[in-house]
Amino acid sequence: MARLTLAFRSPGENFDKWQAAFAALMPDLSFVHWRDVSDPGAVDAVMCWLPPEGWLASFPKLRLVQSLGAGVDHVLKDGRYPAHVPLVRLVDPAMTRAMTDFVTFQVMRLHLGEPTYRRQQQVGLWEPHVPLRTVDRRVGILGLGELGTATAAALVRIGFDVAGWSRTPKDLPQVTCFSGEAGFAPFLARSDILVCLLPLTSATEGILSAATFAQMPQGAGLINVGRGGHLVEADLLAALDSGQLSEAVLDVFQTEPLPEAHPFWTHSRIVVTPHVAAVTNPATASLVVADNLRRLQAGEGWPDRVDLASGY
Amino acid sequence: MARLTLAFRSPGENFDKWQAAFAALMPDLSFVHWRDVSDPGAVDAVMCWLPPEGWLASFPKLRLVQSLGAGVDHVLKDGRYPAHVPLVRLVDPAMTRAMTDFVTFQVMRLHLGEPTYRRQQQVGLWEPHVPLRTVDRRVGILGLGELGTATAAALVRIGFDVAGWSRTPKDLPQVTCFSGEAGFAPFLARSDILVCLLPLTSATEGILSAATFAQMPQGAGLINVGRGGHLVEADLLAALDSGQLSEAVLDVFQTEPLPEAHPFWTHSRIVVTPHVAAVTNPATASLVVADNLRRLQAGEGWPDRVDLASGY
Repeated sequence: MARLTLAFRSPGENFDKWQAAFAALMPDLSFVHWRDVSDPGAVDAVMCWLPPEGWLASFPKLRLVQSLGAGVDHVLKDGRYPAHVPLVRLVDPAMTRAMTDFVTFQVMRLHLGEPTYRRQQQVGLWEPHVPLRTVDRRVGILGLGELGTATAAALVRIGFDVAGWSRTPKDLPQVTCFSGEAGFAPFLARSDILVCLLPLTSATEGILSAATFAQMPQGAGLINVGRGGHLVEADLLAALDSGQLSEAVLDVFQTEPLPEAHPFWTHSRIVVTPHVAAVTNPATASLVVADNLRRLQAGEGWPDRVDLASGY
Repeated sequence: MARLTLAFRSPGENFDKWQAAFAALMPDLSFVHWRDVSDPGAVDAVMCWLPPEGWLASFPKLRLVQSLGAGVDHVLKDGRYPAHVPLVRLVDPAMTRAMTDFVTFQVMRLHLGEPTYRRQQQVGLWEPHVPLRTVDRRVGILGLGELGTATAAALVRIGFDVAGWSRTPKDLPQVTCFSGEAGFAPFLARSDILVCLLPLTSATEGILSAATFAQMPQGAGLINVGRGGHLVEADLLAALDSGQLSEAVLDVFQTEPLPEAHPFWTHSRIVVTPHVAAVTNPATASLVVADNLRRLQAGEGWPDRVDLASGY
């Protein structure tokens, strides 16, 4: 089989780790940093995060775009994306596991009233609160893809009362599944803690808005591990100030890194983490990418191929 | 069978909730607040937390002392404890579950480097850190009784590398078990995160000391959900200042409520919670106490009876 050429481009710049992983896994692969591509016509596949507008279209024989993350919004914002080229999400079991652990921790944080104890510590206040049982806490997962499904299952194992919402109907064990526009309001009405794990598309942009918060139980909590574009930031501040929402945990933001002067940094009811819920790890992700490249050579399809029409 | 009289004494003062629970469960029980005991000779059993010195000895026909919590140090500090009266710990599956959830959350907090992100948020610093996998994190559980065993099992399920230490040898699935004096040093040497779930006895008082911390990996984390008496508070402050320990999560303290001026409140590497890991809930605990009273009437033994010699 012909030697494959895979070009790499990411602001994260961990080319060396990927190179080491591929050297062991696919010694025949020609793995090149985008700055070192001398012949764009020789590039078969690209692995990237946040490619600049038009860059992907510059490879005339491109046959595969591998996203460096589970989301692909960073690729599809390129208005000149070459629509004939298959786009594949990165679905790495190790990253799914990391996301599951992260979200479980954040749900427990809100469930246990932990932010209240942090505020109490700041003023030296000793005041125990009666905890709710997990079976009495209703958690709602927005988005039942790879990550949403795994997270819902983990929360069920801990004993939470879990529901999920997705665009198309799903059926998951021990999860109350809602779908479509008609299912959105009843789903929100029973979400004491709402977790956003949706893909960012034109249909989901700004979905975490004042209208959404108003349909949730008063004092509900929000965890956003989807994308910053899901959240209308001003609406969150208003909902926290009015008490409609009690707490928010945010791992993703409209602008990353979150700008220094942003009000989220200093808000007493917002927990900020720097986009660390599920970090791509070349050591495990390279196995997934290697299999996707093998599928390219073998002419097989990809289970994690993105439907360009729906955007995920 | 003769009507039983159970006297209640607790600084917590939730007599009404207990009364309501017993009214439904044991309509024949005479359940009395300690202030309303007119004839000490009529008291068969006592349910208490932190009884004053000599109070228990004032009941000539006492046949059972039921602790209001899993620990009994609050009873045995009474130098005049009537040694012929059986003392029973409170082992409520709902409290065991609450402790398991609480400790799992706190272990994840340290595992995910969450305190670092809180400090970063305080200064508006966006700096992701590469997370360790749970299998690469060594958690050590001090004390393998009811709570330690259940907690170890939960941490194993999440994938942590779990060890436990107990006075007498134990054998638990997927938990590396150490015991006795000889096992203490090797146990500490592999405890990246140390969880104290020991009973407080003369043998365990002050066990969380400089000598113990010095045998742990540099930068280890500490979670104390045992008793405040386990911790030498000055030694913790020194270990955090030197970097021998990186973080501490404390739910129990030498003096509770933690005094206003105590340095733990404002320490940037100490998380304070107001003794809420496993709060006694009359709704579930009353079932356990009712069974213990039934055993008293039937002349059966108690599986959770305390050995007064070892103190647990």
